[in-house]
Amino acid sequence: MQTYTVALDDRAYPIHIGSDLLARMDLIIPHLPQKRVALITNEIVAPLYLSELQGALEKADVDVVPVILPDGESHKSWATLSKVFDALIAARCERGTTVMALGGGVVGDISGFAAATYQRGVPFIQVPTTLLAQVDSSIGGKTAINHPLAKNMIGAFYQPRVVISDMRTLLTLPERELKAGLAEIIKHGLIRDEEFFSWIEENIDRILAREMDALAHAVFRSCEIKGEVVVKDERELGDRALLNFGHTFGHAIENGFGYGTWLHGEAVAAGMALASDLSMQMGMIGRPDAERICRLLVRAGLPVAAKGITAQRLQELMSMDKKAKDGKLRFILLDRIGSASIRSDVTPKALAGTLELVS
Amino acid sequence: MQTYTVALDDRAYPIHIGSDLLARMDLIIPHLPQKRVALITNEIVAPLYLSELQGALEKADVDVVPVILPDGESHKSWATLSKVFDALIAARCERGTTVMALGGGVVGDISGFAAATYQRGVPFIQVPTTLLAQVDSSIGGKTAINHPLAKNMIGAFYQPRVVISDMRTLLTLPERELKAGLAEIIKHGLIRDEEFFSWIEENIDRILAREMDALAHAVFRSCEIKGEVVVKDERELGDRALLNFGHTFGHAIENGFGYGTWLHGEAVAAGMALASDLSMQMGMIGRPDAERICRLLVRAGLPVAAKGITAQRLQELMSMDKKAKDGKLRFILLDRIGSASIRSDVTPKALAGTLELVS
Repeated sequence: MQTYTVALDDRAYPIHIGSDLLARMDLIIPHLPQKRVALITNEIVAPLYLSELQGALEKADVDVVPVILPDGESHKSWATLSKVFDALIAARCERGTTVMALGGGVVGDISGFAAATYQRGVPFIQVPTTLLAQVDSSIGGKTAINHPLAKNMIGAFYQPRVVISDMRTLLTLPERELKAGLAEIIKHGLIRDEEFFSWIEENIDRILAREMDALAHAVFRSCEIKGEVVVKDERELGDRALLNFGHTFGHAIENGFGYGTWLHGEAVAAGMALASDLSMQMGMIGRPDAERICRLLVRAGLPVAAKGITAQRLQELMSMDKKAKDGKLRFILLDRIGSASIRSDVTPKALAGTLELVS
Repeated sequence: MQTYTVALDDRAYPIHIGSDLLARMDLIIPHLPQKRVALITNEIVAPLYLSELQGALEKADVDVVPVILPDGESHKSWATLSKVFDALIAARCERGTTVMALGGGVVGDISGFAAATYQRGVPFIQVPTTLLAQVDSSIGGKTAINHPLAKNMIGAFYQPRVVISDMRTLLTLPERELKAGLAEIIKHGLIRDEEFFSWIEENIDRILAREMDALAHAVFRSCEIKGEVVVKDERELGDRALLNFGHTFGHAIENGFGYGTWLHGEAVAAGMALASDLSMQMGMIGRPDAERICRLLVRAGLPVAAKGITAQRLQELMSMDKKAKDGKLRFILLDRIGSASIRSDVTPKALAGTLELVS
């Protein structure tokens, strides 16, 4: 087991990464102010891991209130959140009751927002069971639900007390979701660490074959990279925005196809291909680098285009993005593989060049 | 004008108290990161003060997005909050857009929670126009909406950038609401400052006659008392709970009659009368003090009983209270006029004695 600590002063917390961690109550119990947990999961994860985790907690004398949500990004809504609140109130959960998320990004985001707002905030623990959640959404305290008009529009910054990333849970992960998680891992290499990007190129087949040590390294290094960025800029006033590489295009693609049609990681992969092209249009990287990036995305089984959305629609959707500032679109672009910048000066010509790839 | 600064480290903010402050843009403009404001008010306050404040902002080149909510505690709901989000999104409000609350406690609580959660948090400014909001809900950063089963169940701690309390807005306040605000002012004296309690006794008629200097002193001293408590314990882990004097009974009364039937301050007044009686049953204060408290509440035109709710129903509602801890009811009781304590050791006999007053 490896542990990375997100060094956020009084809200610092450990991320434990390893195999067979679900029963490791020594990692969880010290973080519970009351021996009571609302264990939130979904209908897919529940049959796989709920009884194991619930059993371990109950054996340690923790009272467990299980809450099982429907699966999928389309349920990251007020309606689902409201069901969580109903369950917490019905079970008379108090301020010391810990909300624990067992599942992927959707479960984590809803549970985290529920924990942030139930009685104005109760303790929160994440047990991410998808690669995407382990390398991205469980780190950094972003919680949210979607608004019918825009993704992640309603939410809070709220840090967990501990994150338990069990590599074994990845063995049951559908192929498509494993690949979607890989998109964010590749992103971490692209924006911050060329060496890690090269390591992914060399080990992509081992990751896809789910070799535990390859997965664990990819997750650990991702936690380090994302953690370092988050610690410097928790509330995304500056460099945290670099983590949004591929996301301005990606969110628009995800929204354009309707939430839940494309996986978030798939949309981000296509978004990174477009953002790499835009970096090239802006003269920041050369064609060989843009091609090298696309090649890895393709090897990871990820999309590098978004056929079916017109350039006009994509532009419309991007202008709704909450990363807009004074009405101006901001893009995260690559200076080179391993380094990214926030740019508000993208010319209409460069953007038009990239959007030609779309429709 | 007097200014009290709530000294919360990096979230410190000034509360300005005086007359004719609505047009004082020098107090507001420095706090706006973007010259754009979502100005949230309700259908009662809008005809009185919206055009004045909106006009002053627009004259200072601030783009204003007005949002007018229905009036009343029954609208402190997800449905209303959702309308706020719809309006913010429709107007393409960004992360730098400031949410400004113009109105009473309900407008402030909903607007504050909207500001805390829209795009995971945007700047927030309070312009409270009721006495209750000026002396209580606008200080300390508690924001929330009600759940059908429990008041203030969903919310966040979120501090404003500045609070503007204009005494002139109290001239249009309905008599009943002025009195409801007085309940919290009396509470501040009771839990913290006997001298202030005596000052209220001496000046109650001047306050009820809305003499500006009497109102301003009552508001300022309330801000000081509440501010000092909040600064020591922002998240209510300890002494902030003292501010809940009268609220365990009060919330149950408010809930029992149905939100919006009794005003919050009215329920708190009756709750303080019951909590004073309970303090007496517990041998903490004598009958003369309990009677002195009731006398002032009656002079302020406030209820000191809650006819129409049975003792059993009241007890049931109290057990739902979010201030419960490990299933145990906690009460704030008086050591004497001017000092309060948190007590979890109330005997069934003492409680039964007090509840005899109820039904």
